[in-house]
Amino acid sequence: MYRTHTCGELRLNDVSKEVTLAGWVQRVHSKGGVTFIGLRDRYGITQLIVDNNSADTVKEIVGKLGREFVIQTQGKVVERSAKNPKIPTGDIEIAVTAIKILNQAETPPFTIEEESDGGDELRLKYRYLDLRRPPLQHNIMLRHRMAQSVRSYLDSQGFLEIETPFLIRSTPEGARDFVVPSRMNAGEFYALPQSPQTFKQLLMVSGYDKYFQIVRCFRDEDLRADRQPEFTQIDCEMSFVEREDVLNTFEGLAKYLFKSVLNLEFSDKFPRISYAEAMNKYGSDKPDIRFGMEFHELTDKVKGKGKNFVVFDSVEYVGSICAKGCAEYTRKQLDALTDFVKRPQVGAKGLVYIRWSAEGIKSSIDKFYTPDELQAIATGMGAKQGDLILILAGDRKKTQEALGTLRLEMGVRLGLCDNTKFAPLWVVDFPLFEWDEETQRFYATHHPFTSPNPDQLDLFNSNKKEDIQQVTANAYDFVVNGSEIGGGSIRIFDSNMQKQMFKLLGFTQEEAEAQFGFIINAFKYGAPPHGGIAFGFDRWCAIFGGADSIRDYIAFPKNNSGRDTMLDSPAPIAQAQLDELNIRLNLKKE
Amino acid sequence: MYRTHTCGELRLNDVSKEVTLAGWVQRVHSKGGVTFIGLRDRYGITQLIVDNNSADTVKEIVGKLGREFVIQTQGKVVERSAKNPKIPTGDIEIAVTAIKILNQAETPPFTIEEESDGGDELRLKYRYLDLRRPPLQHNIMLRHRMAQSVRSYLDSQGFLEIETPFLIRSTPEGARDFVVPSRMNAGEFYALPQSPQTFKQLLMVSGYDKYFQIVRCFRDEDLRADRQPEFTQIDCEMSFVEREDVLNTFEGLAKYLFKSVLNLEFSDKFPRISYAEAMNKYGSDKPDIRFGMEFHELTDKVKGKGKNFVVFDSVEYVGSICAKGCAEYTRKQLDALTDFVKRPQVGAKGLVYIRWSAEGIKSSIDKFYTPDELQAIATGMGAKQGDLILILAGDRKKTQEALGTLRLEMGVRLGLCDNTKFAPLWVVDFPLFEWDEETQRFYATHHPFTSPNPDQLDLFNSNKKEDIQQVTANAYDFVVNGSEIGGGSIRIFDSNMQKQMFKLLGFTQEEAEAQFGFIINAFKYGAPPHGGIAFGFDRWCAIFGGADSIRDYIAFPKNNSGRDTMLDSPAPIAQAQLDELNIRLNLKKE
Repeated sequence: MYRTHTCGELRLNDVSKEVTLAGWVQRVHSKGGVTFIGLRDRYGITQLIVDNNSADTVKEIVGKLGREFVIQTQGKVVERSAKNPKIPTGDIEIAVTAIKILNQAETPPFTIEEESDGGDELRLKYRYLDLRRPPLQHNIMLRHRMAQSVRSYLDSQGFLEIETPFLIRSTPEGARDFVVPSRMNAGEFYALPQSPQTFKQLLMVSGYDKYFQIVRCFRDEDLRADRQPEFTQIDCEMSFVEREDVLNTFEGLAKYLFKSVLNLEFSDKFPRISYAEAMNKYGSDKPDIRFGMEFHELTDKVKGKGKNFVVFDSVEYVGSICAKGCAEYTRKQLDALTDFVKRPQVGAKGLVYIRWSAEGIKSSIDKFYTPDELQAIATGMGAKQGDLILILAGDRKKTQEALGTLRLEMGVRLGLCDNTKFAPLWVVDFPLFEWDEETQRFYATHHPFTSPNPDQLDLFNSNKKEDIQQVTANAYDFVVNGSEIGGGSIRIFDSNMQKQMFKLLGFTQEEAEAQFGFIINAFKYGAPPHGGIAFGFDRWCAIFGGADSIRDYIAFPKNNSGRDTMLDSPAPIAQAQLDELNIRLNLKKE
Repeated sequence: MYRTHTCGELRLNDVSKEVTLAGWVQRVHSKGGVTFIGLRDRYGITQLIVDNNSADTVKEIVGKLGREFVIQTQGKVVERSAKNPKIPTGDIEIAVTAIKILNQAETPPFTIEEESDGGDELRLKYRYLDLRRPPLQHNIMLRHRMAQSVRSYLDSQGFLEIETPFLIRSTPEGARDFVVPSRMNAGEFYALPQSPQTFKQLLMVSGYDKYFQIVRCFRDEDLRADRQPEFTQIDCEMSFVEREDVLNTFEGLAKYLFKSVLNLEFSDKFPRISYAEAMNKYGSDKPDIRFGMEFHELTDKVKGKGKNFVVFDSVEYVGSICAKGCAEYTRKQLDALTDFVKRPQVGAKGLVYIRWSAEGIKSSIDKFYTPDELQAIATGMGAKQGDLILILAGDRKKTQEALGTLRLEMGVRLGLCDNTKFAPLWVVDFPLFEWDEETQRFYATHHPFTSPNPDQLDLFNSNKKEDIQQVTANAYDFVVNGSEIGGGSIRIFDSNMQKQMFKLLGFTQEEAEAQFGFIINAFKYGAPPHGGIAFGFDRWCAIFGGADSIRDYIAFPKNNSGRDTMLDSPAPIAQAQLDELNIRLNLKKE
């Protein structure tokens, strides 16, 4: 061993010990004949000190040191005269008696400190250097702790971690597969799994009633911001359970993680709200409930009331939020908010406001509604003097979503989205189907094995479009701070229900067989009732770390074009490899 | 929840409890108006009993039950009159008061019992049914326990589990890569990792001084028996360590696994033997030391002695083993052994024996050596009356390997290879290089980053072929019961040593840059001394389970042609997929 201690562990009560440390030179600076060296490893930084009394051999080597050199040093722990309260080792330093350069280092392309001077692309290219920075090390260690805690909890609950294959078969449903040409089976391909969904359901058929896996998944999608082509999932499934059992089990997991990783105690049950309620209150199926600012629907109060305000009179839905203490927003601020909601990503046509300042009620619709009417609206939604009411109108779903985006924006502006606060909840009772106008058919909101809620069977079996549209799924999402961290469902295990499902999705028996025959077949041999959930592990780590982006919670991520700029991957392969795989390139001419 | 208890947990002290169970019908049989149902889940089997006093509704449903039906039942725990001591629940049974068929089952294609009547291929096709059998469930649970124990030990030792990418870059060295065409980067490919070797060394450069991962790896090799195209590795690396530190750490892991998984205590240090000693004593670099039967080299004792026995006189090496108590082997048995060693896989030219029976010494070389000479050989190797000495002669390495195979065969014949006994050891000091006659160059026995032993630097730097051939590597294998379970090395971190290594391997600077430039580059920014090890997790599980094959320790394995017959994968993909990936098939005409 090259060291007796790490660079993060020596304290005052180690004073006068002879120690050997090894690590990277963070910085060297000299002052009045004394040289101070910051020696860093992933555990911390310890100060080394070399002065005029030090051996010449030591001084000579110290003279050669540069940033990021790897050194080994021996010395005695001494109390510092000028202590550094910012670091745990700040009370001591090492009076160096011997020093050895283990490896030199070229000057790194950016500074390796808490905050780096390197840009994103440069730091991705030299990821192995960026990973030396304390914030990234903290993230990677958090992720490690999360993974161990997930496993220790699920193991304690009798779950088995079972590995499923990575070289599987391509399925036409869902997102695009990455495929792997088979050399030994010319013209055939494996696919990389988008999730172990099929396998976990098979494992239930096999009787492994509590399964989990922390597993890499792959989706060849056009990458949106903060998506990775490979990502990690905590994948779980249980047999002989109903929704309540699944929610309780994984609420237990979440509470255990909050406690063991963040030392946060959640004694109450997590809130459970229906999809309908989430949309009506927050305009989102993954509401951020760190703050209230719930919607107030004004449709009945304003539509057809007042003096012919066409905007409100003509729409399906009018909704509002109350921004506490924002009555003094300037014209400019209000214009900025209007621009915000009119951006294509938000999609509102305009923004109506009512401000309740010391001077009374003022609004952008004073021409159409009397002060009393406006006052009634404000009072009706619990506004107080000093508040600003923001109103959107239009089609119900789109407007609720736009208002939800505005609510989040106001949350940020008002400092209500504190990343060290956590507000978990369950969203349940999603619609089982989505109607697609274009193709005039239903699609499964989740997947074709998601069961309807037990009280929905009459609607589910009715075959009338208006009934089918109402059917809620026995599905659930786990949401924290406005991010969907997990989702799952109770699966269909009854073959008649499955047949009806396929029928509603417009599959002929033959099509269903072709696409899902394999799992339908397995289910013939005794499938137990089962259900499960999958969590986005990268996302969960990022949320726990208080970050918006998952990228810095993945040791070696890809950029937004799916490239690993460090490896320069993907890359061309040799003709011999192509030949062996029985494929050739088919590049489009530009 | 569909149950109050599992089918494995009820005991005598639960008698008179009202319980609800759910599971699969293992068997139904009726005797004298009483029907017994074996209800199975992964926890065990519980007997249900229905008699004339049972409700008609219950009897009616019981009449419909078939093998592997999924049922839910309620009843009272009662003491059995005829107890079954073979199963933990054998003291009780459930007097059924209600029963419900949750799912029917078609008759499975083979019996789902301890021993199945299904053949290998059939059981692979219906793997989800085979996985219901208790031996496979035991294996999968063992694997789970192994994985949790590995993590809990390494976590306790300060190791961080860090996930590395699966979509990486193809490298020309080593085994063949599986590749993944990139849709977004036309004409380019990712590769699936053969191991995270590069990444773990980068993580050392990044300062994560103790890394591990239980990770899937991929090799597109022509499959030998019991190889899988995807397999799982326990991958580990440490910084600021020497060989002794690595061996102690992972010997600690192995002992922890023996204790926590098998309840076996190993208080002594594991034996450490050099590659040279392993070859000289056991003719194998992964010796099975559950039994002795060490080689005795006879070269000096027989070569040029006796009456012109050309076979011994002309060879480089004569070696022998002593098979205790086998002096009475018949002619036929000896002929069988001769045939065994002459098989091409073993490759010996013939077999010489000396038997020491009650009638004295007899041998197949009585014509060439006097009884005294033969007696001296026998006595010299510690043989006793009743023993059989088996002798092979030829080139040293080949003959030692053949004798090693014969030794293992005798070990099996003599019942010395008890799969419930475990004999772990470390094999160290492998040759750093292998000389290839055909290409007239050295190859790295492990990989080009393996360092020579610290005492070998003069030889390593000498550039003389005869010196280079002698250099031993700072590398180590972990061997249990004749299987290599893990292997690793202390890596080169000094750039001059690395240059010398590439030179000895016949790489020009440009070739080295082209193949390894990326990691060489990373090492310029301060690489610490480091080393590591990787364990074959599938193999380790199989060894702990006392099995020869890894296949039944993998939930969903592939067959020997790399096919998943359950999924029928690999499979053709759609033309649209090929088009999107900018490739087309290039099938050879038969």
